[in-house]
Amino acid sequence: MLEELKLAVVDANKLLETSGLVRLTWGNVSEIDRASGIFGIKPSGVAYSELEPSHIVLVDLEGKQVEGDLNPSSDTKTHLELYRAFQEVGGVTHTHSVYATAFSQAGRELPCLGTTHADHFYGAVPVCRALTAEEVAEDYEANTGKAIVECFEGINPMEMPAVLQHFHAPFTWGKNGMDSVKNSIALETCAQMALSTLPLAPNLGGIPHHVLMKHYQRKHGPDAYYGQL
Amino acid sequence: MLEELKLAVVDANKLLETSGLVRLTWGNVSEIDRASGIFGIKPSGVAYSELEPSHIVLVDLEGKQVEGDLNPSSDTKTHLELYRAFQEVGGVTHTHSVYATAFSQAGRELPCLGTTHADHFYGAVPVCRALTAEEVAEDYEANTGKAIVECFEGINPMEMPAVLQHFHAPFTWGKNGMDSVKNSIALETCAQMALSTLPLAPNLGGIPHHVLMKHYQRKHGPDAYYGQL
Amino acid sequence: MLEELKLAVVDANKLLETSGLVRLTWGNVSEIDRASGIFGIKPSGVAYSELEPSHIVLVDLEGKQVEGDLNPSSDTKTHLELYRAFQEVGGVTHTHSVYATAFSQAGRELPCLGTTHADHFYGAVPVCRALTAEEVAEDYEANTGKAIVECFEGINPMEMPAVLQHFHAPFTWGKNGMDSVKNSIALETCAQMALSTLPLAPNLGGIPHHVLMKHYQRKHGPDAYYGQL
Amino acid sequence: MLEELKLAVVDANKLLETSGLVRLTWGNVSEIDRASGIFGIKPSGVAYSELEPSHIVLVDLEGKQVEGDLNPSSDTKTHLELYRAFQEVGGVTHTHSVYATAFSQAGRELPCLGTTHADHFYGAVPVCRALTAEEVAEDYEANTGKAIVECFEGINPMEMPAVLQHFHAPFTWGKNGMDSVKNSIALETCAQMALSTLPLAPNLGGIPHHVLMKHYQRKHGPDAYYGQL
Repeated sequence: MLEELKLAVVDANKLLETSGLVRLTWGNVSEIDRASGIFGIKPSGVAYSELEPSHIVLVDLEGKQVEGDLNPSSDTKTHLELYRAFQEVGGVTHTHSVYATAFSQAGRELPCLGTTHADHFYGAVPVCRALTAEEVAEDYEANTGKAIVECFEGINPMEMPAVLQHFHAPFTWGKNGMDSVKNSIALETCAQMALSTLPLAPNLGGIPHHVLMKHYQRKHGPDAYYGQL
Repeated sequence: MLEELKLAVVDANKLLETSGLVRLTWGNVSEIDRASGIFGIKPSGVAYSELEPSHIVLVDLEGKQVEGDLNPSSDTKTHLELYRAFQEVGGVTHTHSVYATAFSQAGRELPCLGTTHADHFYGAVPVCRALTAEEVAEDYEANTGKAIVECFEGINPMEMPAVLQHFHAPFTWGKNGMDSVKNSIALETCAQMALSTLPLAPNLGGIPHHVLMKHYQRKHGPDAYYGQL
Repeated sequence: MLEELKLAVVDANKLLETSGLVRLTWGNVSEIDRASGIFGIKPSGVAYSELEPSHIVLVDLEGKQVEGDLNPSSDTKTHLELYRAFQEVGGVTHTHSVYATAFSQAGRELPCLGTTHADHFYGAVPVCRALTAEEVAEDYEANTGKAIVECFEGINPMEMPAVLQHFHAPFTWGKNGMDSVKNSIALETCAQMALSTLPLAPNLGGIPHHVLMKHYQRKHGPDAYYGQL
Repeated sequence: MLEELKLAVVDANKLLETSGLVRLTWGNVSEIDRASGIFGIKPSGVAYSELEPSHIVLVDLEGKQVEGDLNPSSDTKTHLELYRAFQEVGGVTHTHSVYATAFSQAGRELPCLGTTHADHFYGAVPVCRALTAEEVAEDYEANTGKAIVECFEGINPMEMPAVLQHFHAPFTWGKNGMDSVKNSIALETCAQMALSTLPLAPNLGGIPHHVLMKHYQRKHGPDAYYGQL
């Protein structure tokens, strides 16, 4: 079932590696079919270059594995919590990409220092707190998802499709799996730019609000005019 | 019409990606045919690897789309302003390359710290101011071009084929599209070198004037002796 | 003899180069067959791309070359000391990868700043002291191995499969040759992440202990649930 | 004439690009035939991927072009001065590789911080002064070579096959062209390592002398035991 979705999940996971965002098997992408409430996700520990549609594990919104012989990504429950809470999200990506992970490890939000950032994220990318010892012991991956949802109280996840978890790494999302990978690429590049910008201008406050708004809106607003229709 | 120019625009845009200057679709190259006053530019949001000459959009110096079914780059009006004001310019490139963008975001000019820089840019690469809220609201991309032209009052654009727009990213230009991409590659590499040089010598003032002059002239002066004739 | 092992040693050494960990011939991998007490190691100074199983040098635990016409890696005696002292180790990798070598040169342990690190190394990666002039003169490579073993008194090498030798570079190990290369890749990436994290949070103490324990255990503990069985 | 040498010069120049040391056409390699006193060098401004043996320009030790239709590298007179002064040198490489150029621009010698450096360079890589206005005006490229030779008074160029020219970039040399490129790769990597090491240990003095001596000697001394015989 959902053969097209499984193929899309394969392609999105392969892009993770070819774009240089992951080393070894440190990342995973999923995509959901909202009609059936089922998402496909990368199996755990399988090399990207060897992924085939038949490897993709299908999971429903109760967390039940409905198809696939392999174990799903160990981060599956985090994806599940995000799909449950963020109704418009169609795809989720998790990586340990170097520069976004550096901000995560430092527990520092990624400030919006330029239009590259504003084209994708409407303001500073927030930091989600680390889990408590109790949350880790009880259900680590599900509680990671819940902590992200808690962090987004009052934030529209479609305007801010990324989060940096303290001591851990980024999660991004989007309209579908491929879109969530593109947001991971954007996040990593913006983090790299910020790491080079901060030593040049340590007290930089971020871009003027009218520039942020313009850039975000020309790509994502109701009158967006970037790309083809 | 202008089949050779369209092919040149395709090749120059593809080099943008293979040289590592762009991620996703964050960059565009155009080239102008001065005889007809028409330039060809990348369509918006199309992947570099899939570009074909028939995709290239032709635009005249009034900004009218004269050929092509796709929407031109959203930065087209900026290219247009540069072609109007800088009569000798034959090609324009815009990227969000990481290190040049870091200097743009920081609002710091790129100092001439060595001969690599002097071989391409006659002095420090200037920073163009950010637009006001009014300029953004009125016509963002055209006003970006006008701000660059304003910044170049008293600067010969053929001796300084690059600018860093504050909070945004670099624009470069040259004799033709491919030449403008080469200036983007040179700019990015010089920015990367500067980011590594500054921590080693924070008070470095820049290269001696006689070295700057010698290097720039041996590549670009009337008695240039670099390359083949 | 040991044809499979020689092929595995070739593959692991080739991964050293394709993963970007080595330049020129600055790295080597070995793997041991514990049943016979013989390990295979890269010959000295041979290009990775040209390696064939017949080039692999076989050495026993007395350090005697038992097969192969080429000289083994000049670091062979270091590998030998590690195999002698660390009974569970099945493969050893030595590289001069840039970021891990930076920590080695600085004589600073690599702190555990996030879960990427915790997934592979149970705590900070230790620094092994430089050799004395006497140890260098007597038997440089063997004494390097002995200094590492001395450094690991009280540390379980299977929980901490890496060391940074002061003024020199890292050594890693694992269940077999390929596993030791993967630990080199993990070490290099964690070192790169740390170099980007430290300027963002100079006083960062490292991740909470319950997060370290959780991540290490979910990949390596008795109830590990990462990957396929 | 000298067909083998021309092929070797082509291969060495191509390695310059495939190893990532150069962008555009910012680098050149030459190799000398000491019997005839003739060296072959890359033509100016030609793309590395298109180089063929027939493009290589042959020049004698008087600086006379003895074969080849193309203009030789604009740095030819610098190579010539090095061949004249350093009798044992068989090949010369010039690049603007990013990290070695950063040290050149900063006018800082590259300290010997570890064994990677000690394996190739016997101590800190020296900085050659910038030329005076008079030297630039008189004969820029020849005087660059003469300034390097002046800088090496009392230094054995075979033990220190590299120099960093202030405000400019590195030159390296070796037994032949390919060996000089390998020294460029080693220099660039050591410069990159140093740039990552210095923030971790700002007051690091360099490696102990007995470690430097051991590493240099095991690769280059009379009793060298690295590689195959």
